[in-house]
Amino acid sequence: MSYYEQYRERIERAMQANRERTYYAPFPENPKAYAEDAAAQALSRFQASMNNDFTELLQEKPLRFEGEEITPYLQTGLGIRYPIFADKLLVQTASKAMDIWRKVPYTERAGILTACLDQMKERFFDIAYATQHTTGQSFMMAFQAGGPHAADRAMEVIAMGMEELSRVPASCIWEKPMGKFNISLQKTWKAMPRGVALVIGCSTFPTWNTLPGVFASLMTGNSVIVKPHPKAVLPIAMVVAEMQKVLNAAGITPDVIQLAPDTQAHPLAWELAEHPDVRIIDYTGNTDFGNRLERLQQSGKQVFTEKAGVNPVILDSVTDLKAVCDNLAFSLSLYAGQMCTAPQNFFVSADGIRTPEGMVSVDAFIELFTAALNNISTHPKMAPGVLATLQQDAQKDRIAQVAAEFSDAVVLASSPFANEEFPDARVASALLLKVDASRTEAYDREWFGPIGVVVCTQSTDESLRRVLDLSRRHGAISCGIYCTDPARVDDMADQLAKIYVPVSVNLTGPIYLNQHAAFSDFHVTGGNPAGNASFTDPLYINRRFVWVGQRFSA
Amino acid sequence: MSYYEQYRERIERAMQANRERTYYAPFPENPKAYAEDAAAQALSRFQASMNNDFTELLQEKPLRFEGEEITPYLQTGLGIRYPIFADKLLVQTASKAMDIWRKVPYTERAGILTACLDQMKERFFDIAYATQHTTGQSFMMAFQAGGPHAADRAMEVIAMGMEELSRVPASCIWEKPMGKFNISLQKTWKAMPRGVALVIGCSTFPTWNTLPGVFASLMTGNSVIVKPHPKAVLPIAMVVAEMQKVLNAAGITPDVIQLAPDTQAHPLAWELAEHPDVRIIDYTGNTDFGNRLERLQQSGKQVFTEKAGVNPVILDSVTDLKAVCDNLAFSLSLYAGQMCTAPQNFFVSADGIRTPEGMVSVDAFIELFTAALNNISTHPKMAPGVLATLQQDAQKDRIAQVAAEFSDAVVLASSPFANEEFPDARVASALLLKVDASRTEAYDREWFGPIGVVVCTQSTDESLRRVLDLSRRHGAISCGIYCTDPARVDDMADQLAKIYVPVSVNLTGPIYLNQHAAFSDFHVTGGNPAGNASFTDPLYINRRFVWVGQRFSA
Repeated sequence: MSYYEQYRERIERAMQANRERTYYAPFPENPKAYAEDAAAQALSRFQASMNNDFTELLQEKPLRFEGEEITPYLQTGLGIRYPIFADKLLVQTASKAMDIWRKVPYTERAGILTACLDQMKERFFDIAYATQHTTGQSFMMAFQAGGPHAADRAMEVIAMGMEELSRVPASCIWEKPMGKFNISLQKTWKAMPRGVALVIGCSTFPTWNTLPGVFASLMTGNSVIVKPHPKAVLPIAMVVAEMQKVLNAAGITPDVIQLAPDTQAHPLAWELAEHPDVRIIDYTGNTDFGNRLERLQQSGKQVFTEKAGVNPVILDSVTDLKAVCDNLAFSLSLYAGQMCTAPQNFFVSADGIRTPEGMVSVDAFIELFTAALNNISTHPKMAPGVLATLQQDAQKDRIAQVAAEFSDAVVLASSPFANEEFPDARVASALLLKVDASRTEAYDREWFGPIGVVVCTQSTDESLRRVLDLSRRHGAISCGIYCTDPARVDDMADQLAKIYVPVSVNLTGPIYLNQHAAFSDFHVTGGNPAGNASFTDPLYINRRFVWVGQRFSA
Repeated sequence: MSYYEQYRERIERAMQANRERTYYAPFPENPKAYAEDAAAQALSRFQASMNNDFTELLQEKPLRFEGEEITPYLQTGLGIRYPIFADKLLVQTASKAMDIWRKVPYTERAGILTACLDQMKERFFDIAYATQHTTGQSFMMAFQAGGPHAADRAMEVIAMGMEELSRVPASCIWEKPMGKFNISLQKTWKAMPRGVALVIGCSTFPTWNTLPGVFASLMTGNSVIVKPHPKAVLPIAMVVAEMQKVLNAAGITPDVIQLAPDTQAHPLAWELAEHPDVRIIDYTGNTDFGNRLERLQQSGKQVFTEKAGVNPVILDSVTDLKAVCDNLAFSLSLYAGQMCTAPQNFFVSADGIRTPEGMVSVDAFIELFTAALNNISTHPKMAPGVLATLQQDAQKDRIAQVAAEFSDAVVLASSPFANEEFPDARVASALLLKVDASRTEAYDREWFGPIGVVVCTQSTDESLRRVLDLSRRHGAISCGIYCTDPARVDDMADQLAKIYVPVSVNLTGPIYLNQHAAFSDFHVTGGNPAGNASFTDPLYINRRFVWVGQRFSA
């Protein structure tokens, strides 16, 4: 039975869900759905892996082994060293592998890639610990986002790939009536891959942000080199190793996907990106390097970026302000604001917020908001579970710097909180500022980390104007609107849609601005400065290959 | 009845044909299918229009009227003057119109655009005379390519647009099971247009090369400014005027599409392209300006180009060499080699061409080829019908220059031929050179016009190597292969597909390399230097809009 036949039903279900934008989750996000001792066994494997070389990859000729990951929970190095390879060798190997991989029918590629996800599933707990101790996410988020949700987005890419690659028939006899006779030609159409694909990972979501690009390029017949962030290698190294095993078992070379670990002292990303045979680049990370990569499009490379944005919330009118504050406090606190979808700027009219009980003043709103933030940060289980840790010292420094620079605007100070399990964890609760809209220096940029700014405007109209202006210049990946007037909502949503900012309206309860689900939410629209691509719209697939028609005298 | 309902069946048939890549022609290409006196009436209208201002456009505030078209059949000016508008006003008007047009449902846009094609059909003969006397095409080609074939490609774009815009549901209730309860959200997805679209036309195919970009941008909710080539305004001016009338009748502003005529002394293309509100650019023309436009992608503009290519033919083995020579002679002679798909370089091994009767030497092949070329150029009806005229003096000069520079290589001289109907027409038969492959200066560039080069190589392997190298550097829009060994063909086709060159194999009889049919042939792959876009693959549509998801608390 071919790989495709084996997974056919699942792939078709995914295609259907993708078309209908319905909820579909091939991989349970609840750890309890897996074997009872799976977590414990993975933990001991993780502990055993520390201070050892990572040798699972099926890649030859490492130059040396190096590693510099630090767990934010212990603030000590993991001591795991990864093989470092010569960039030219990586590209050369990838080019050769592509010539094999492109000839594998796309249905079979879909089957093999689905098998890779099944294999990845066997290591969801390994990936969870690896993610927790590199990104600093809570275990629960590390499990969900690092494993099932990342695999869901990869499955979504397989489904979209199937859709795109099957939309043109492989071959047909074309007949043109000429009156007394027909001309006939055999025509075929081939989806030709663009070339070697490079996927550059980030330090906060090493699998979730990496797998869509990996699977999209592989689905369309390209070979892939994964260049992880040197501070978050282990989770994606495990996935790449499993994929190599599946490719090997399928009788295809494991070289179809390679890992390219590097170090901060000797980064490989630019050398790889510039190589003439690298034709596709996926990138998640800071705006400067993203813009530099985008300029490589000049030489015909296809570059897919997710860069920084400044995500706003507009508060106009609500039915239950406490429920709104609880929801927003969770969104701001989750993983200490280190999600690309986390809100930062909260725009409120100086008149306050309209509620069924009358106008609530800005200060009364802030009181409710800070109370909700405190509920999280002072709760012995919630605090470590929600806020988790700061991935880097830079985030900690940023909090201190912003608090000092805008000390008169601080309405809630950031403070450490207790983490019983990891007393040495790098932790901080959210810092909240309140400024007048004229004080743009406090909010006219991204403050990556748990930093929120309540911005007081003259009116909701001004709030919207400022959000439009900020989003146009800095981009936005998410945007919250709280407004009980449907016509007003439509107008705001429309004006934001015109600059390609997606909105979430009146969210309360257990659904948050931050969450972007596979098969349903496009992640990053690709139309504003926060990034030029979207998980997973048709462009995300179609830009990776070229249709070539061929005609044969029939 | 809405426009969509009125045209629903036709649109759905077009979508089906597009998916299946079957022959589909909504508009008869045979002039005889239309009213008997249609041609005569159109001719007298055309004659009456000469030396008059073109006043059909529903556009206000012209700065002045100018025109500089010259008919290659009479080599005199048409004397038709077109309104010239300020570039800033054009963009401003387009921006305003887009905000109306984008809110028209895409189904309705499809109906209105189909109505535009129906309206265009009423003027196929007008367009034919206008095309003949600006491009210099024969009347038959001017009718077919300028009218029905251009409208077919526009219909193809409508079909592909419907497919893309309907692939995501407009709205759904999304429910996520949370164990004891479901979270539910209302989610909507909107296809937001990119902005004002500019379409820059060329002098040889003013409607065929322009309408796909026009219809693709309009289908996806953008407004359009058409900047025609100053030497070929009339055909597209007629189409724009008809579209404006339809938009007006539909109760939508005619400003959705505007014509922006200019002159060689005061070109408008770059000013319009650079304008920050212009977000989409379609271009057909020379490589230098195309590359300059492509660099505007740096600022987030979507640029679609069709530039120059050097189209090759590889001759290895044939079953009927005379039939092959007849076919190639027609391809090279058709519209005097001024089609972007016309072959230029004919690669033959010095050993000759394998036939059932044994090897045919290069000289014997050239004898057959030149005989076939002469059959066309000396035939009193075929010559004007096939070779038509040279659109510009530049083509005439180029023939003379190449003939002089490579005088020792000339195996067939170019000469004028008689055109009874138009004794003053600018005409020339094909020039054929024969050179050794080492003499690269004779064929390592595009000679736009009726110039063919037989290139003698050591072997078909060398022929292929040279074709690959040339195509990689200069691009190719078409490529012919003549080879009777299927395995060999597969290998050559595959190597060419790897660099995104489409091949046509063993064509003889009345089907030619030059012809690219709507609903079936992708025109330009977009993967080699001949252009970065393709009529009409999914990218051609998807790059013109952005999916924006919106989520509402349900």
